[in-house]
Parts: sequence; C-alpha cells; structure tokens
Amino acid sequence: MIKMSVYYPADGGSKFDHDYYRTRHMPLIQERLGDACLRYEIDKGLLGREPGSAPAFVAACHIYSPTLETFQEAFFPHSPEIRADVANYTDIVPIVQISEIVEG
Amino acid sequence: MIKMSVYYPADGGSKFDHDYYRTRHMPLIQERLGDACLRYEIDKGLLGREPGSAPAFVAACHIYSPTLETFQEAFFPHSPEIRADVANYTDIVPIVQISEIVEG
Repeated sequence: MIKMSVYYPADGGSKFDHDYYRTRHMPLIQERLGDACLRYEIDKGLLGREPGSAPAFVAACHIYSPTLETFQEAFFPHSPEIRADVANYTDIVPIVQISEIVEG
Repeated sequence: MIKMSVYYPADGGSKFDHDYYRTRHMPLIQERLGDACLRYEIDKGLLGREPGSAPAFVAACHIYSPTLETFQEAFFPHSPEIRADVANYTDIVPIVQISEIVEG
C-alpha cells in the first residue's frame, strides 16, 4: 500500500482554513479518486518535540491507495481541478510526498 | 486521537537503516509504550510531487495514541532510551510533531 502525503509548513504562509479542508477539499479528492482512495487521514498540527513548541506543519493529509500506479492513474486527470481548489483554504505551498507503507 | 510523527529529511544526513528501524527501533517503542501506542505506521519515501523526483523524507513513523496526555505520560520516561537507539539506524536529525487526527 502507498500513501500520498501533503504537508503544509507552518512557516510557509499566512492562512489555513481547517474547516474548508475537512469538509470540502478532502471530500472532493475522495469523490474524484473513487476506489483509488482506500481512506484518508487529516492531521491538525498541535506541537513540536518539546511541550509548548510550535508544530512544523499546521496540517497534513494522507491518502491511502493500493499501488502507486492506481493512485497516479486516478489522480492525474483531476489534478488541475484539485490544485485550483487549494487557494480556497490556504496560501501555503505544500510539500507533497508519496511513500510506501512498510508497516502499519 | 493524536499521533506523534517523526520525519527524517532526505537532505538531513547520510544514512538510514530501514530494516533496523522496522525490526528493532519501532518494536522497542511499541513495547515501552504499551497500551498508549494503539498502533504505528512506518513510511518509506518513494518520490515527491513530480514523477521521478526525490522524496522530501526518506522515512517517517506515526505513533497513534488516544490522547496527548496518555502519550506523553507513557513516552517521556522512556525518551532517553529511545533517543539513544537512534544512532543505530540514522544520523539524520528528525522533525518531530504531534498532531490531532481530525479525520481518518
């Protein structure tokens, strides 16, 4: 199984609308991906390593998919629409990464 | 539910032993945390946003716990032992973050 993770660095911009992200953006992705999205997870950053410290990322999402090929085939046709929606909730340029889940 | 995530930046060091991480380090943490670790997930970085691009993080782990307090009470007493084991698999200084899981 693989996952695509999108990280929003806390020092990368000035706004992040968690409600829009949770109720509009991520459901849009799930609808467009269909079965290629097994599930997704949304993180809201709380703190860093030390108590009271700021988190590195204000938010992140992780989209789980059976294989890299399955994900890419399902995602790429909708990438322009999905990217166009980003300005509705943030001005942060995210870090995007695809990982293999080796245990979990 | 919360999770503690540990990210190992690809440009942060020269080595990362994925086998040791999966078979020794993470099982050590699970054993020490007991019920405070509901489950954990290990990521191995594959690629970045564009096909063929390098991932930002060579590896990451995510430890899921019922609450922040539960996690901190269970983790802190073992933190010295866990940190001391890090040199056995990497020289990368990780990014540590605790997040609330708002959906997933």
